[in-house]
Amino acid sequence: MSSFDYDLFVIGGGSGGVRSARLAASMGKKVAIAEEYRFGGTCVIRGCVPKKLFVYASQFHEHFEDAAGFGWSVGESSFDWKKLIAAKDQEIARLEGLYRKGLTNAGAEQIESRAEIAGPNSVRIVKTGKIVTAERIIIAVGGEANYHKSLPGHELCISSNEAFHLEELPRKIVIAGGGYIAVEFANIFHGLGVETTLIYRGKEILSRFDQDVRRGLHQAMEAKGIRILCTDVIEEVSKSDTGALNVRTLNNGVLEADQVMLALGRDPYTKSLGLETAGVAVNARGAIIVDQYSRTNVPSIFALGDVTDRVQLTPVAIHEAMCFIETEYKNNPTSPDHDMIATAVFSQPEIGTVGMSEEEAAKAFAEIEIYKAEFRPMKATLSGRAEKMIMKLIVNAADRKVVGAHILGHDAGEMAQLLGITLKAGCTKDDFDRTMAVHPTAAEELVTMYSPSYRVRGGERV
Amino acid sequence: MSSFDYDLFVIGGGSGGVRSARLAASMGKKVAIAEEYRFGGTCVIRGCVPKKLFVYASQFHEHFEDAAGFGWSVGESSFDWKKLIAAKDQEIARLEGLYRKGLTNAGAEQIESRAEIAGPNSVRIVKTGKIVTAERIIIAVGGEANYHKSLPGHELCISSNEAFHLEELPRKIVIAGGGYIAVEFANIFHGLGVETTLIYRGKEILSRFDQDVRRGLHQAMEAKGIRILCTDVIEEVSKSDTGALNVRTLNNGVLEADQVMLALGRDPYTKSLGLETAGVAVNARGAIIVDQYSRTNVPSIFALGDVTDRVQLTPVAIHEAMCFIETEYKNNPTSPDHDMIATAVFSQPEIGTVGMSEEEAAKAFAEIEIYKAEFRPMKATLSGRAEKMIMKLIVNAADRKVVGAHILGHDAGEMAQLLGITLKAGCTKDDFDRTMAVHPTAAEELVTMYSPSYRVRGGERV
Repeated sequence: MSSFDYDLFVIGGGSGGVRSARLAASMGKKVAIAEEYRFGGTCVIRGCVPKKLFVYASQFHEHFEDAAGFGWSVGESSFDWKKLIAAKDQEIARLEGLYRKGLTNAGAEQIESRAEIAGPNSVRIVKTGKIVTAERIIIAVGGEANYHKSLPGHELCISSNEAFHLEELPRKIVIAGGGYIAVEFANIFHGLGVETTLIYRGKEILSRFDQDVRRGLHQAMEAKGIRILCTDVIEEVSKSDTGALNVRTLNNGVLEADQVMLALGRDPYTKSLGLETAGVAVNARGAIIVDQYSRTNVPSIFALGDVTDRVQLTPVAIHEAMCFIETEYKNNPTSPDHDMIATAVFSQPEIGTVGMSEEEAAKAFAEIEIYKAEFRPMKATLSGRAEKMIMKLIVNAADRKVVGAHILGHDAGEMAQLLGITLKAGCTKDDFDRTMAVHPTAAEELVTMYSPSYRVRGGERV
Repeated sequence: MSSFDYDLFVIGGGSGGVRSARLAASMGKKVAIAEEYRFGGTCVIRGCVPKKLFVYASQFHEHFEDAAGFGWSVGESSFDWKKLIAAKDQEIARLEGLYRKGLTNAGAEQIESRAEIAGPNSVRIVKTGKIVTAERIIIAVGGEANYHKSLPGHELCISSNEAFHLEELPRKIVIAGGGYIAVEFANIFHGLGVETTLIYRGKEILSRFDQDVRRGLHQAMEAKGIRILCTDVIEEVSKSDTGALNVRTLNNGVLEADQVMLALGRDPYTKSLGLETAGVAVNARGAIIVDQYSRTNVPSIFALGDVTDRVQLTPVAIHEAMCFIETEYKNNPTSPDHDMIATAVFSQPEIGTVGMSEEEAAKAFAEIEIYKAEFRPMKATLSGRAEKMIMKLIVNAADRKVVGAHILGHDAGEMAQLLGITLKAGCTKDDFDRTMAVHPTAAEELVTMYSPSYRVRGGERV
């Protein structure tokens, strides 16, 4: 019999924490899970889910416009930000309830308090000051937005956290950053009628994605009216007499805005977590260092999800949680598999991607074949909307394996999910070619590109 | 040097005919292609393409309704059928132009006339009466709607052909049939505000599809307000004094409608084609009988596409055309591959499917595993729309291969296209399980169903 209060204590009620707590409890383990804010974590409370609801909201004005080309006349429309926030909050509360119910049904104790490491097998419940013990501890506290505290005027800025709860929709917004959060919010705010400027220090938005989809999205966003300032940074934010914010940039003078949103990456949320009391090692970014079984250097303490800074994605945290359960409680050592992860950016148009970019593949393989299609989606022929889809497959010439697939356009995320299966399974271009088209779809382009658009040999396009 | 007027004469300017004519001509062959109506064939002129444009048109009223849940207020909307028809006609004319341009650029002669077989190597151009000769002849005349001439009052009814050109949008329509054309048009007309009744002799719409998606679509259509009368047939259609049509049914009394559309299948369009003059063999349905290389019993005459009644799909006809070119002109005998063809039904909700239904798989394999998810799409949580998605995977327990995948819901067609690659390549359920989810998407359900919903062993659900 265990001499600990719990078999498992989980710190953090996000995707990874909840999944591990629920599964362990459903196996009969004595489990507690502590959460200082709301169960569901970044994904459910202030990430993927409310973000995607905002994306839906921001697409309707295009539906209204597109309708005319199909014979519809639509009366004046207006948008009420407060209604969207209320509807979103209600849905998030419902989902949080489902997460809690799942934990309750499995028999996991939920503790509504911040919890901190007090030793290799002990945790301090901050709200009560009580110290409890556990045979195993999981740290799954996630990440936090980088508030860029060295920026003069950073306290006048918001992060994505606040963007989900703004009292009023701004008239003008400046968003700093070139990652997916910056890009998604730029499209959301623009779609809701906000004059939107994106400012990014790099040469092109969405570094590490394939060049064609990066450029394609950049062009599409500019064509919609989003201002994008690359190779520029904010140097200072200040408040004018009228209450507006003045955003002084390095290269583009002073911009005026009602809100400035910083989307400059997310850091592991390990500050003041008591890691030093147990001697848990972290890296230079503050991320907890783990081995291939999500074990920290302290044998009884594990970490998973964003706090480990491996791959900051909800499904990855869930996968790491399931691997933890297999390894620790099912006698089936299982390492998380971080290879060939498909992802989506819910920009407008959307990006779906899996595997290597052309640039990566050109370095990795002696010769690659690039299959590329750019076309107008069928719906746009009648709506008149100027938009194009880009589809791109990257094939290793030596063994014909498809090593990268990149899509810009409607449903790119759904497509990336299923292309993910084919790339993970090692399907070849011949497998794609053998597949009959489904007509009329957009995805049929992916199985009807019979000849390479070009090849890259020894890093040179030929 | 050839003693014939042409190397290749193609009868029929649809998907299969145009592809074979274009490819042969681009190889330097002397090619003519005759078309009696419009280049593009059923798919472009009065099938897949205009149908999908109508589908888009019919979805806007749901967008207008859905917007409210996201904070939008939308003014009154109205729909102008004539505007849709005009926009559709313009787009179809553009596409027809592209088809013709492709033929012209390749050097294929286009003959705007009906053409009939006059012998093993000769064709009669009906408009001029001229007889021309060709080394090879392709018959690619497609199919025609079944007008059900034994039905009293059939002359008062329309087929899908006429549905694309109606002068006015009917107030009430009765559609006979349970296949994809009937189902798609029922959703189109309902979406455009027409009071719609579907009448079908079978027990459930869409025979040969998986039971769950059939039932799921039936329920969704009824929930929208489409009346579906299964196990019933139209016995007579007559015109009342007011000009309305009275539709006498076997089991549901007399229905009143402005239009009655018959969607009772399509037959090979071989009547009066002169097949007997060359001795080309047809089957009982009038379809031209071909071998695995699309050759008829007459060595110089080939047939491909719907006229052969193999699989009536545009991509299949194109594929057969490409196989013909490989076999006859590239010394690379290639049989069309009709196995594991993914398809979509552009109903609302959409169906995407590939491989075996549960019923088929239960007969084919000793034990199968069924993985099934039914859920509300994320967008519906805020729109409040009562809709659910169904996703279903069928796995052969013996070798873990996924042998069927069936989806009901948004983007099901796009998903079917990509699932088609995985099933064609023989991917296993383990390949699906190994794939990381893309969150939040609908398709992620397909890679996160870790435990079977149930199994079927020896035909019995266990």
